[in-house]
Amino acid sequence: MKKYQGYLIDLDGTMYRGKEKIEEASHFVKALYDKKIPYLFVTNNSSRTPQQVAQKLRDFGIPTLDEQVFTTSNATANYIYDYKPEAKIYVIGEEGIRTALLEKGFELVEEGADVVVSGIDRSISYEKLALGAINIRNGARFISTNGDIAIPTERGLLPGNGSLTSVLTVSTETQPTFIGKPEKVIMEQALKVLGVPREETLMVGDNYHTDIKAGMNAGMDTLLVHTGVTTKAHLETYEEQPTYTVDSLEEWIEKI
Amino acid sequence: MKKYQGYLIDLDGTMYRGKEKIEEASHFVKALYDKKIPYLFVTNNSSRTPQQVAQKLRDFGIPTLDEQVFTTSNATANYIYDYKPEAKIYVIGEEGIRTALLEKGFELVEEGADVVVSGIDRSISYEKLALGAINIRNGARFISTNGDIAIPTERGLLPGNGSLTSVLTVSTETQPTFIGKPEKVIMEQALKVLGVPREETLMVGDNYHTDIKAGMNAGMDTLLVHTGVTTKAHLETYEEQPTYTVDSLEEWIEKI
Repeated sequence: MKKYQGYLIDLDGTMYRGKEKIEEASHFVKALYDKKIPYLFVTNNSSRTPQQVAQKLRDFGIPTLDEQVFTTSNATANYIYDYKPEAKIYVIGEEGIRTALLEKGFELVEEGADVVVSGIDRSISYEKLALGAINIRNGARFISTNGDIAIPTERGLLPGNGSLTSVLTVSTETQPTFIGKPEKVIMEQALKVLGVPREETLMVGDNYHTDIKAGMNAGMDTLLVHTGVTTKAHLETYEEQPTYTVDSLEEWIEKI
Repeated sequence: MKKYQGYLIDLDGTMYRGKEKIEEASHFVKALYDKKIPYLFVTNNSSRTPQQVAQKLRDFGIPTLDEQVFTTSNATANYIYDYKPEAKIYVIGEEGIRTALLEKGFELVEEGADVVVSGIDRSISYEKLALGAINIRNGARFISTNGDIAIPTERGLLPGNGSLTSVLTVSTETQPTFIGKPEKVIMEQALKVLGVPREETLMVGDNYHTDIKAGMNAGMDTLLVHTGVTTKAHLETYEEQPTYTVDSLEEWIEKI
């Protein structure tokens, strides 16, 4: 059995379920920590800052530095910086994406944008969507933090950023560039931050369509854990299988 | 040249452009009125009541009774009544669709809906979309007043109801039933209200993809007028052509 030199790890469904801790997951991370194996949490959540996410993990007893959280907001800001460092950006989204863009030095505007960014925004309004549509029709590049169609909550599955993004896609007949999992964009950046070669790194997550596909798209080995979205019954129906599958991350500790 | 015994007529781009009157269009309607030819205005606008729309037309000097305006809100209310007269409805939308559903006797609810209706709502919020998604995931039938992707305004093309509807389509992976043009649903009902056989009725409009397609889908003859959306250059590229084409409705008056 191969020993991996680094880990990229999903959060919701892998480390916790909403507000509920997954005990075995914290044992797993503690084992990585004790053996000094580098790990980085990679999340499609664009609404919160890495500091906020890291604090949540620490509250669950999971050893995490702020720098060990890499969000799709970080990836989006880096991506736009590579595309056009002086870009003026019109953003629909919450604190996480706004903070990431401002920290990268971008100017946020309502008119004359070079780039429109769509992230989850639970204060969405028609005026915000209208400004997005006008900027895209005027030639702004269209980028979406992630294509998740739904967000699991206590009330059930609520609209995710992929569904909000579709308002602008349909209205302007323009396809966005998606940044988050399962896209390669966020994974390539996360590997660089982790600093371990991709062939030595394992991608760990509960969702076949985002986490495992992201690992596959980045040419990495993958570990699917059945503590979240993807059931065994569903997994059987997919042609391309993860490198490894476990019921709980406790099972993996001996392989670290 | 065939003499038509009845007319179905589009509004925006055909009778007026936003707040601007199209003078020749009012001459055309006055000629219908003088010759006692039945006509009915058919609109995808779900935001206003027939009374409000008729008043706008009268303000432009176009002879119109309230009963001569048939909106996609009317068609939606009728369609749901045929499907389930006692349906509980969760509606996203403005005054026009709400009034049409209430006048038809439906109960509007937030939970436990049999039907979710999506109409243009410029006070859209995440909570409204969340309630729509929850009801559809709980089994409610999903109906959309119309699929227009954009609304022409002084500020440019803003998101139309088809793009707002896509949030629920994408998030719940459920296709809605669309009611408005180019669908047959609204046309069949409009023909019944007009009371003239379809082969004796002409559909008049400026938009190939909504008005003319709607006429074609209902098996009617069609007249495209180049005072709105569809240009001659665009029209040339479409395989199936309208029965007739004019630059202005003034040209058609002698054929009434």
